[in-house]
Amino acid sequence: MTYSTPRGTRDLMPEQAILLEEVLEKVRLVFRKYGFEPVETPAFEELEVLEKKSGEEVRKQIFRVGESEKLGLRFDLTVPLARLMAGNSSLPKPFKRYHIGRVWRHEEPQKGRFREFYQADVDVVGSAGAESDAEVLACAKEALEAIGLKPRRIRVNNRKILDAMFAKLGLKAGATQIFRALDKLDKQGRGAVESELKGLGLSAGDVEAVMKVAGMKGSNEEKLAFVKKEFPNEGADELRALFKSLEDYGVEAEFDLSLVRGLDYYTGPVFEISGAEGLGSIAAGGRYDNLIELYGSKPVPATGISLGIERLMELLKPQRKTFTRVYVAAAKDEYRSEARRMVAKLRKAGISAQTDLMGRKLGKQFEYVNSKGIPYAIVIGEREMKEKKVTLRDMKGGAEKSLTFEEAVKALA
Amino acid sequence: MTYSTPRGTRDLMPEQAILLEEVLEKVRLVFRKYGFEPVETPAFEELEVLEKKSGEEVRKQIFRVGESEKLGLRFDLTVPLARLMAGNSSLPKPFKRYHIGRVWRHEEPQKGRFREFYQADVDVVGSAGAESDAEVLACAKEALEAIGLKPRRIRVNNRKILDAMFAKLGLKAGATQIFRALDKLDKQGRGAVESELKGLGLSAGDVEAVMKVAGMKGSNEEKLAFVKKEFPNEGADELRALFKSLEDYGVEAEFDLSLVRGLDYYTGPVFEISGAEGLGSIAAGGRYDNLIELYGSKPVPATGISLGIERLMELLKPQRKTFTRVYVAAAKDEYRSEARRMVAKLRKAGISAQTDLMGRKLGKQFEYVNSKGIPYAIVIGEREMKEKKVTLRDMKGGAEKSLTFEEAVKALA
Repeated sequence: MTYSTPRGTRDLMPEQAILLEEVLEKVRLVFRKYGFEPVETPAFEELEVLEKKSGEEVRKQIFRVGESEKLGLRFDLTVPLARLMAGNSSLPKPFKRYHIGRVWRHEEPQKGRFREFYQADVDVVGSAGAESDAEVLACAKEALEAIGLKPRRIRVNNRKILDAMFAKLGLKAGATQIFRALDKLDKQGRGAVESELKGLGLSAGDVEAVMKVAGMKGSNEEKLAFVKKEFPNEGADELRALFKSLEDYGVEAEFDLSLVRGLDYYTGPVFEISGAEGLGSIAAGGRYDNLIELYGSKPVPATGISLGIERLMELLKPQRKTFTRVYVAAAKDEYRSEARRMVAKLRKAGISAQTDLMGRKLGKQFEYVNSKGIPYAIVIGEREMKEKKVTLRDMKGGAEKSLTFEEAVKALA
Repeated sequence: MTYSTPRGTRDLMPEQAILLEEVLEKVRLVFRKYGFEPVETPAFEELEVLEKKSGEEVRKQIFRVGESEKLGLRFDLTVPLARLMAGNSSLPKPFKRYHIGRVWRHEEPQKGRFREFYQADVDVVGSAGAESDAEVLACAKEALEAIGLKPRRIRVNNRKILDAMFAKLGLKAGATQIFRALDKLDKQGRGAVESELKGLGLSAGDVEAVMKVAGMKGSNEEKLAFVKKEFPNEGADELRALFKSLEDYGVEAEFDLSLVRGLDYYTGPVFEISGAEGLGSIAAGGRYDNLIELYGSKPVPATGISLGIERLMELLKPQRKTFTRVYVAAAKDEYRSEARRMVAKLRKAGISAQTDLMGRKLGKQFEYVNSKGIPYAIVIGEREMKEKKVTLRDMKGGAEKSLTFEEAVKALA
């Protein structure tokens, strides 16, 4: 009997793990280019810390850790950041951090949904201005482009606008449920959302009003002017400033009054980037100016965005099976030592190289080279040793060249 | 009230997190150069999987996860590898994998010892030959050099030699305790180890015999010839082959009969790399040919080595506080938009850049630049805008140049 991974978790074999590393490396480079710095936090936190932010639903999803100790695996990277910022209030502001790490949620696994997954977040803490919302959004967009995923739509909204609108309609109480219903507009369509709203007890007139606003067409400026007139609040001005900053960065976004996003802690702009048609959200976030003070500090404004790495990886094809560039094959046992010395020299030249570790004959060595997809082989046999040359074989086409070893190194570099 | 991290865990703030990322990046590049490929496994495994390898002592160190489910956080990266290999027996061999990840041990935290820490492992699965022991050892040595830690001593021994020696002395029963006592020779000295051996019930003669062998001086060849004569077994020949392979790689190692290493599963060569005087082990490993079959497959030979990343980080000084190369400072609010457009162009050119996100005046912007240790600033003020130039300031010396923006980009690239 062999053993499998725990439910909702999985191993990444080399091809997938290589893809993951390459994705994370590209994302990390973009995050750095935008002036974000890394932090690391523990995989688990005090349960009290985790439960402060989370609603009942999230609480049930926490994997508990330890027997006597009250610990739980983190379910996102925002709670650890809030805990960290509250405990280090003297850090220079803005505190621009990125964090790439695993999080865990004890929920029902589904296709493409795991209990253990990576998130890659950037957040700006300490700045209340729309420049920071633009900064995280532009950064996420470039990170997605860096891994080859062309963002299709960038939608933004503002919680303050939604609040003002619902207050005017007198719908404050059921706001959360209405938000949730509206959030499905993109996926389920108008009819389904309307029935859901009616099911929540909204009058036909209220449903009509909500849907009219959520479904508004027009330019960002037209929509902003409308909401500013109908529901006076600062949210529209914040979005104007956001669009202006985004424009400086060359990023286009659209004001979408039906965009809601999980509600528990967003206080201002919310945003979502979607990929190719029908693929839904590939990055999302928003402003959360009230979260950090929950952890015991004075109020600190913050905004951030999160890339769901597993989702991104589903959309990408592995590009390579191996990092190895060349395999040095010894035709006879007495050349094995020479093969190892060549491998050492290749590695010294920065070239990823391997040689046989199994005592195998040439044919079997080539089977391995092919099974791993290694692109080149250097062969040393009797003739090669006598002529002080090597044979460099291109494994794809099979073309061979007789070269000195130094020439082969140059050709591979 | 603010909250701290759980006992034995910690946050890494940017300076330390940058160091960690740089260390891991360098290590990863070396691992790849040696032809190892990454895998990822879950943070937790079935308790049954974890407890298969571990002795009682390790079992107590497992952090349990979940309430009804019997899961535990992994305490090393070898058990997950063994589980994975047993379940995927058709993978091409040798399977050369690296794995860099966190592990967790519920033990008493001490200075430099945490309950959560990183390991970076390379292992070769499927090959019984000394070439693979040499491969992982040479790879670990180069990884240490790559992060700037000159290995001081590389010591090797072979469990088969120890077994043969103890069998001849009739000490088989207490072997584990004797191994443990011997393992302290390097740290505690001869006297302490001799008393401990006597305390274990060894006769004065046996103690003398054990100590004579463990403390042997001479060249590797002299020591190997001695043990081969005194305790005939294949261990000495394996080490000869290991030394030969290491020599091809340009790696010097010394045969040290007192080197033991944790015993539960090593079956052949064991090795340890130590850093500067008194710093002890910075990488260690060995051959474990019997572990994988414990997880339900046919026997598969394997060897590997592990770098303790926290230990390595203690030995290194952070090299930088930020990834940001330049800060674009707008002297007046009306230039902020221009500053953002410049930042966007700098990033496009691959240069890490930031601008103000706090609506701050110039003086405060420079305080931030200094607090973060950002090396360059581009300043745009009235004069600069009029002359269509920027001021490029070297924050270290304070030297300033008046350049076109394009010239500044070139100077920073």
